[in-house]
Amino acid sequence: MTQDELIEKLDFKKGNGLIPVIVQDTNTKAILMQAYANKEAVELTLKTKKATYWSRSRNEIWVKGETSGHTQKIVSVATDCDFDSLLYVVEQIGPACHTGENSCFFNKML
Amino acid sequence: MTQDELIEKLDFKKGNGLIPVIVQDTNTKAILMQAYANKEAVELTLKTKKATYWSRSRNEIWVKGETSGHTQKIVSVATDCDFDSLLYVVEQIGPACHTGENSCFFNKML
Repeated sequence: MTQDELIEKLDFKKGNGLIPVIVQDTNTKAILMQAYANKEAVELTLKTKKATYWSRSRNEIWVKGETSGHTQKIVSVATDCDFDSLLYVVEQIGPACHTGENSCFFNKML
Repeated sequence: MTQDELIEKLDFKKGNGLIPVIVQDTNTKAILMQAYANKEAVELTLKTKKATYWSRSRNEIWVKGETSGHTQKIVSVATDCDFDSLLYVVEQIGPACHTGENSCFFNKML
């Protein structure tokens, strides 16, 4: 499928217009964070190569690092078998987490 | 925080009782799939060390691989900075995807 066809296949309905995005560091393969994208955010990400999300707290398009400088340069984008999840592989500048940690997943449960 | 404290911190409200779960292969570091967990699924995962989810299509607890044999042995579980996302690192037996692919994220968009 072409990129345009895949965009049309994305299933935004299940999540009320949003699809979860997994963000992986291209170098360390670590999971950096998990966010959400609407269709506009996916299209901007593909076009600008800057990881772009929908901020659920601010209710707006969110270009990661626009204020902090901790941007994410897109290396690859993929969607899953049923088109309701996205994976951004990125080159991360600075820490991904607003707490200053490299990854948001620092709370170990097991 | 202890495991019990972290379980109580998990924010199931934002997602109507469900939290997205990122599933990573402990050996290859590949993202295998993304699913959802309710509180019971997280507790079962931590207790049994078998990756357990909530199936949105079947509306029931789903022990991965229970019918296919393609189980996921839990290596570690973590939650993120705001407790609304989970990461299961697993030892995957067989392919993770129902299509037979190793990973569900085989639809490359970029």
